[in-house]
Amino acid sequence: MGFYQLVDILGTIAFAVSGVLVAMDKRLDLFGVLIIAFVTAIGGGTLRDLLIGNTPVTWMRDLTYVTIIPITVLLTIIFSHQLKYLRKSLFLFDTIGIGLYTMLGIEKGLEANLSPIMCIALGTMTASFGGVLRDILCNEIPVIFRKEIYATACILGGTLYFIIHLLGVAEEYAYVVGILAVIVMRILAVRFSIRLPNIYSSKN
Amino acid sequence: MGFYQLVDILGTIAFAVSGVLVAMDKRLDLFGVLIIAFVTAIGGGTLRDLLIGNTPVTWMRDLTYVTIIPITVLLTIIFSHQLKYLRKSLFLFDTIGIGLYTMLGIEKGLEANLSPIMCIALGTMTASFGGVLRDILCNEIPVIFRKEIYATACILGGTLYFIIHLLGVAEEYAYVVGILAVIVMRILAVRFSIRLPNIYSSKN
Amino acid sequence: MGFYQLVDILGTIAFAVSGVLVAMDKRLDLFGVLIIAFVTAIGGGTLRDLLIGNTPVTWMRDLTYVTIIPITVLLTIIFSHQLKYLRKSLFLFDTIGIGLYTMLGIEKGLEANLSPIMCIALGTMTASFGGVLRDILCNEIPVIFRKEIYATACILGGTLYFIIHLLGVAEEYAYVVGILAVIVMRILAVRFSIRLPNIYSSKN
Repeated sequence: MGFYQLVDILGTIAFAVSGVLVAMDKRLDLFGVLIIAFVTAIGGGTLRDLLIGNTPVTWMRDLTYVTIIPITVLLTIIFSHQLKYLRKSLFLFDTIGIGLYTMLGIEKGLEANLSPIMCIALGTMTASFGGVLRDILCNEIPVIFRKEIYATACILGGTLYFIIHLLGVAEEYAYVVGILAVIVMRILAVRFSIRLPNIYSSKN
Repeated sequence: MGFYQLVDILGTIAFAVSGVLVAMDKRLDLFGVLIIAFVTAIGGGTLRDLLIGNTPVTWMRDLTYVTIIPITVLLTIIFSHQLKYLRKSLFLFDTIGIGLYTMLGIEKGLEANLSPIMCIALGTMTASFGGVLRDILCNEIPVIFRKEIYATACILGGTLYFIIHLLGVAEEYAYVVGILAVIVMRILAVRFSIRLPNIYSSKN
Repeated sequence: MGFYQLVDILGTIAFAVSGVLVAMDKRLDLFGVLIIAFVTAIGGGTLRDLLIGNTPVTWMRDLTYVTIIPITVLLTIIFSHQLKYLRKSLFLFDTIGIGLYTMLGIEKGLEANLSPIMCIALGTMTASFGGVLRDILCNEIPVIFRKEIYATACILGGTLYFIIHLLGVAEEYAYVVGILAVIVMRILAVRFSIRLPNIYSSKN
């Protein structure tokens, strides 16, 4: 198993867990939980593959995903009580997922010969779209629109990857730095309540 | 007209009728009803074609669908009073639609050299997605998340098709058995209130 | 810069402005406004490219869009007070956008060898989808379902283009006539409250 496939599997697990946690919070039935976990885990990669014309989409050509996701769902349901006590579980798994998927999207963009800006856009969409679908289907306000830095972390992490790779850092190291940068930035943004500047006059 | 095209047309009509019934229940105007009928009838096939890279998508290459859907819409509007008295009309047309579209999706998956599991996943998505879009646009809880067996019927019917085809039954017979299995299983599940097992502790 | 690219850029600007106006009305933060502007401006073209298999989608292969949209967003935010006083701004920019995008979609359909009916369908979807996404994400009833002629204007404008082109009018002139026809028909429909015929009996 190569490096990128490992990143893909870890991201799939992280997003599947986050999907199960949101779906169980909404008390969906077993099938509903499985669907939400699938949609969260493969939504971003599906949008990415469709936009660049990489069809049949990745998860349809490889039984890895349909094997890993149900196993993850079962284990998460069984251990959901333990995860519930860890209040930050959902946040943590979602954050790990966006870090891994941002860089996977950038990688696929480079393979499709897109410019760095488009690779970063593709990475951000890959990272965000599964969570947006999860939240829409569970009738939550999409996480990307909540007042915290989310896509901004993806964009900055992706930019950092291109900068340090340009400065001579080997691709795989730069890749890991990019993943960690997204994760750390989002955690710091939430911990210190960093927000984007306000564009409205303060009247209301 | 070949066998598969006949199945496709029957599925298109069944889903278009189900779209009209939901849209009229919401009292949308003529254009709204037409749009919902279209989206319900072509939504599943469009997702299917996009995921396997079968573009331009089927309904754009063939005037059959844009001819059949408006005719179906007009006839359904004219005879809607008769259909309303048959209380089960919506359920029946939706169920016939998912039976036909499940097998159509499996057929297209086989053509794209997907594995049987992926063919069944593709068939289930082909069958469900039009109804999900219909329900989201009409502000209903998507039928797939309601507490009745829906996608499960598609999965079991698709699995049955592969098993009996493997056992030597000719493809077209196995195909018809698959369609009927989906329809019968969903009708039985609703009649006898068969549900998926509960994954929550009984406290709340 | 060719004629069609100019039309594309004008449409992108018009839809980006309409996205900013809706998003600011909902008081989204800076990132939310930018996302809504992007989705409104590129949503229709993305759906169009996916349906005909024109991938990577147009806006990913060309830095024009990612340059123009943020500049448009900034200028619209800065001058939003001026635009607010012009009560009809949103309606006007949205209407200009659908006129331009309808004909762009038809053009792309012709390139993909689709029949005229399918070109008109593709043009209507190209024109409507960005606004539908904008309204869904901002939790508004999609403009296309409100009681005014919207998609009908696209369909009639597209039909007019094919008729006068068939009658011998040069393509670029017919194209401009098509754009203006969509815009004028929608303005007239709103001003004179022209609606589609009612399909319900008047009882309730």
